[in-house]
Amino acid sequence: MARAAARQGMRKSEATRLRILDAAARVFARRGYADTRLSDIAEEAGTFAGSIYYHFESREELVEAVLTLGVTGVFEAVRTRVEALPPGSSHRTRLTAAIETHLAFALTQDPFATANQRLFAQVPADIRQRQIHLHRAYGEYWRKLLEGARRAGEIRRDLDLSVLRLQILGAVNWTVEWYKPGKRSIEQIAAQLATTIFDGIAA
Amino acid sequence: MARAAARQGMRKSEATRLRILDAAARVFARRGYADTRLSDIAEEAGTFAGSIYYHFESREELVEAVLTLGVTGVFEAVRTRVEALPPGSSHRTRLTAAIETHLAFALTQDPFATANQRLFAQVPADIRQRQIHLHRAYGEYWRKLLEGARRAGEIRRDLDLSVLRLQILGAVNWTVEWYKPGKRSIEQIAAQLATTIFDGIAA
Repeated sequence: MARAAARQGMRKSEATRLRILDAAARVFARRGYADTRLSDIAEEAGTFAGSIYYHFESREELVEAVLTLGVTGVFEAVRTRVEALPPGSSHRTRLTAAIETHLAFALTQDPFATANQRLFAQVPADIRQRQIHLHRAYGEYWRKLLEGARRAGEIRRDLDLSVLRLQILGAVNWTVEWYKPGKRSIEQIAAQLATTIFDGIAA
Repeated sequence: MARAAARQGMRKSEATRLRILDAAARVFARRGYADTRLSDIAEEAGTFAGSIYYHFESREELVEAVLTLGVTGVFEAVRTRVEALPPGSSHRTRLTAAIETHLAFALTQDPFATANQRLFAQVPADIRQRQIHLHRAYGEYWRKLLEGARRAGEIRRDLDLSVLRLQILGAVNWTVEWYKPGKRSIEQIAAQLATTIFDGIAA
């Protein structure tokens, strides 16, 4: 009985932690790092600042946890979607799926990804430093996608793939700065991004 | 004599103000809004925090002046470059010149543009609100460039020009997040951006 009660207590504590993280992601994404107070996050989570301090030592620790969930979440979603494609899918199909998934993840599906993209440049340098290996792993995945496409002869040989990778992710990530739900669907934006990236805008 | 002395005093004061703005742009761009203290800016400018408060009421007022110079500076540079092209230049030439100028301005030529691009999402919402009309005017200029290209039949008719504009500026602005001088020249990056935007990456 004591063990069951302890387990239930742990579950409740874990649930509160997750609720705080979720609220933190949403408030940080909405207001930016400089403008967010722990009391705003507590309010969003329906708890008190004291409860946040029970789970996280500081605003820095909290933002770091949010950022980590942001990068690892989008990476997993993209990889899962690409790996679920039928074997023998073209590299264009694979890259298009990666672009669509990253975009959709950033724009709606996940407050952590949105927060990550808006916050990364804003947080103190030492936090950014500790996040870099996560970004590198995701960048490495994209590098392999693009190298595969080039090896298969599906993309031009004269392009610098590092610039290309950052160029694609830049166009995708920037949508977070301007997208408002309603006017255009995420599918429409993803379709235009994918088609112009592959075929260009020239008539 | 009194008037001459007053004028000289004014000039000296104006020079100090500009030196503070320039230092602020560089420090804000380097450290981000959250991480920058007025004392860092004073040190960069070779002055004291008290001197900054003589010219600017608050860190908010200072960052707002930096942001304004960032948007208006890049707008003027792009417009000047495009208007200096030979009459009858193709729309592709005009758009390429605009892309190159915005990129070069962002990456090296101007600390205000770099600061603007890194800081805009980080500053308090009321400052962002007051900057929006400047961004709109610049966006409007790009909209006209793209509309001209479409009217002339130089770019595809099926593209949403608002998405396209943000997609191009997104890819360009994102370079600020990753560019390190040395490995690739700004001209190389601009050339790849312009050619892939027009012709795509497909082989």
